[in-house]
Amino acid sequence: MNTLDIQYMKRALELAKKGIGFTSPNPLVGAVIVKDGEIIGEGYHQVYGGNHAEVNAFKNAKKDVQGATMYVTLEPCSHYGKTPPCAKAIVEQGIKKVVIGLKDPNPLVSGRGIKILQEAGIEVIAGVLEEEGRELNEVFLKYITTNIPFCLLKTAMTLDGKIATYTGDSKWVTGDVSRKYVHELRQRLSGIMVGVGTIIADDPMLTTRLEGINARDPVRIIVDTLAKIPLEAKVLNLSSNAKTIIATTEGASEDKLKKLKEKGAEIIITPIKNEKVDLGYLMRALGELKIDSVLLEGGSMLNYSALEEGIVDKVHAFIAPKIIGGENAKTPVGGEGRELMKEAITLNHIKVKNFGEDIMIEGYINKF
Amino acid sequence: MNTLDIQYMKRALELAKKGIGFTSPNPLVGAVIVKDGEIIGEGYHQVYGGNHAEVNAFKNAKKDVQGATMYVTLEPCSHYGKTPPCAKAIVEQGIKKVVIGLKDPNPLVSGRGIKILQEAGIEVIAGVLEEEGRELNEVFLKYITTNIPFCLLKTAMTLDGKIATYTGDSKWVTGDVSRKYVHELRQRLSGIMVGVGTIIADDPMLTTRLEGINARDPVRIIVDTLAKIPLEAKVLNLSSNAKTIIATTEGASEDKLKKLKEKGAEIIITPIKNEKVDLGYLMRALGELKIDSVLLEGGSMLNYSALEEGIVDKVHAFIAPKIIGGENAKTPVGGEGRELMKEAITLNHIKVKNFGEDIMIEGYINKF
Repeated sequence: MNTLDIQYMKRALELAKKGIGFTSPNPLVGAVIVKDGEIIGEGYHQVYGGNHAEVNAFKNAKKDVQGATMYVTLEPCSHYGKTPPCAKAIVEQGIKKVVIGLKDPNPLVSGRGIKILQEAGIEVIAGVLEEEGRELNEVFLKYITTNIPFCLLKTAMTLDGKIATYTGDSKWVTGDVSRKYVHELRQRLSGIMVGVGTIIADDPMLTTRLEGINARDPVRIIVDTLAKIPLEAKVLNLSSNAKTIIATTEGASEDKLKKLKEKGAEIIITPIKNEKVDLGYLMRALGELKIDSVLLEGGSMLNYSALEEGIVDKVHAFIAPKIIGGENAKTPVGGEGRELMKEAITLNHIKVKNFGEDIMIEGYINKF
Repeated sequence: MNTLDIQYMKRALELAKKGIGFTSPNPLVGAVIVKDGEIIGEGYHQVYGGNHAEVNAFKNAKKDVQGATMYVTLEPCSHYGKTPPCAKAIVEQGIKKVVIGLKDPNPLVSGRGIKILQEAGIEVIAGVLEEEGRELNEVFLKYITTNIPFCLLKTAMTLDGKIATYTGDSKWVTGDVSRKYVHELRQRLSGIMVGVGTIIADDPMLTTRLEGINARDPVRIIVDTLAKIPLEAKVLNLSSNAKTIIATTEGASEDKLKKLKEKGAEIIITPIKNEKVDLGYLMRALGELKIDSVLLEGGSMLNYSALEEGIVDKVHAFIAPKIIGGENAKTPVGGEGRELMKEAITLNHIKVKNFGEDIMIEGYINKF
C-alpha cells in the first residue's frame, strides 16, 4: 500500500458516497481506473438495480483500459445478481491490477471475486482504507450478515446532560446545523423509530425536510406497547412517500388496531418483554420488511430499553454548549440504569465533529 | 501584524506558560528579543516577586539588544512595584520596536507602559494574539479588575449526561488522562471548592497528586451551610501545604465551629441566601484572602447554585464515551433548573479537546 493507492482509494470512497440514500439494500461502492498516473475512468453505484461501480467506471473511461489499475472500495462481485459479475468484467477488460478497500462480507461473494481476479493473473491488493470502507457501508455490513437493521441512536443534550428542561421544553437543544444534519440522517436511513411518549409529547412528523432536494421520508416506526397513539397524531395523517408502522403487543385493543389500519398504518405485533414491545423481535421483523437501517430518536425510556436489548449499533450524541440545570430534567438515557460505573456500555472508533456551535460525539457500541 | 510577529508572539506565549502555578497573583508573561531575524534573548515571569519577563529576557540576551525588537505577551509595566518599571528598562536598553500581546487591564498600568515607549520614540504594535494572551491570563484579568476569584467549573459526565450511577458510584467517569489533567488544574488554581455533600459521600483529599513534581495543593474550600462536615473527614486530617476553609453560616453550631478551628480549619461565616451559604459573599471573602482562582468540583446542587449566583466564569466539561442510563442518576447541574430551553446559560469561545478517549468541551459563561 503506497501513497498513490491511498489517494486513489480516497477518490473512490468519495464517489461511493454519491450514492448515499439511493442504493439500499445494496452497498455504496466507488471505482477509479488509473493508467500511466492518470485517472481515465470513474464510476459509482448510483441506484439500487443500476450498474455496479466497476461497470460505470468502464462506461465512463475516456481511454483504453487495457493494462490499467482499478481501485474499488468493495471486493468486486462474483455472482450473477441483477447484473453480471464485475470480477469477470474486470478480467475481460484487461485490467492488470486491482486495489480493493473492503472484502465483501456478503456470504455469496466474499473472497470469490478476488479469486477470479487472481486466477486470471491480475495482481490484487486488498484492505486499502478498509476502516473508511467499513464505516461507509456500516448499514450494508450489518444487514447483509444478520438480516437485522443497523440501528443508529441519535441523542441531543445540553452540556449538563439534559434533553429537555424540567418542564419538558426541548425547543431547541441543538442549533440549525445539527438539526439539518439530522434530516440528512433521515434521508439516509430506511426507518425512524420513536416511542409513543414522544408522539404524545411533541407530535412530530418524522419526515425528511431538506431544502432543494426531493427528500425521501424514512418509514416511521412507533413503539407503542398498548397502541395509545392518538388517531389525530401527525404521523397518521400526513402525506408522505413512506408508511407508518405501529409496533405494539397483544395488550392493544382490537378496535384501536382496526382504526389504525383504517388510517393506513401497518401493525406489527410483538411478544411482550418486560411489559413492553420486544425490541429484538421488532428489529428482526423490520429486517424481514427489507428495512436495513433505523434511526432511533427515542426518549429516555426507549433509548434505555434499546441499549439494554442490544439493538443499538452506533451512537450520534449531539452536545449543545448550554446549561439548563434541573434535577428532574430528562437525560438521553433513562430507565433504571446500570448499578456501577464499571458496568457502563462503552464505545469504540470514537470521533468528534463540530456542527456549528454544537459538538457531536459518535462511536460504535461495544458488544460482548 | 505579520507572520513573523505571530511566530515570535507564539514563542513568547510558550515562555509565559512556563510560569503557570508560580506567579499568582501576578500575570503570566513571556518576552522574546529579536534582532536581524534571530532570537537573541528570551525570558518569562518565573515566580511571584521575581524579575518580570522583560528583565529576564535582557539578562539572557546573548548579543547587544540595541536596535532590536521585543515581543512581550502583556503590556510592559509603568509603575514601581516589587521591581522597577519595565517600560523604562526597555527604553534604556535601546529597543527600537515593541510588539505587545494584550494591553494591561491593571488600572495602575493600562496604556501607560505603551505611552512611555511611544514617547521615547519606540514603535509599538499592540494586540498581536490578544485572544491567546487573554486566555492565558484569564485568572489575572478577572482578579485584578474585580478582586473576586476566577471560578472554573469542572464537570465530568458520561455520554448520557450522568456524573454517577443511580447508586452513586462514580469511580470512574473519566479515564486516566482526564484525571491527571484535573490534578494539573489543582496545581494551577489557588483554591478548590466542593460542597459538604461531596465530602460526606466521597471523603476526597482535594490535594494535588502529580508524579515527579513537588505539587502545590489548592486551598480547600468546603461549602457547608450548617457545618455538618464530619471531624474525621480527610480534608481536616491531612498533611498539606494548603489550609482548609469551611464556608458556613450562623446556622452552624458554635461548638462544631470551635472543634473545626481546633482541627486547623479556617471558618468563613457568610449571610444566609436561599437557605444556603451566600456564594457571592464567599467569593468576595476569598478574594480578600488573596485567592485569585477557584476550581469548582461541586456536585449537582452546588454547581447549580454557583451558576445561578453568577460566580462561574468558565466551564471545563469532560465527557466520557460510555453510557450508564438511569432516570435517577445525577447530572452535572441539578437544582430546580431553568424552565425553558431558550433561557439556558450559554457559553462563548468554545473549544473541544481530547484527553485519551474522553472529550473536554470548554468555554466561558456568557454574562448579561
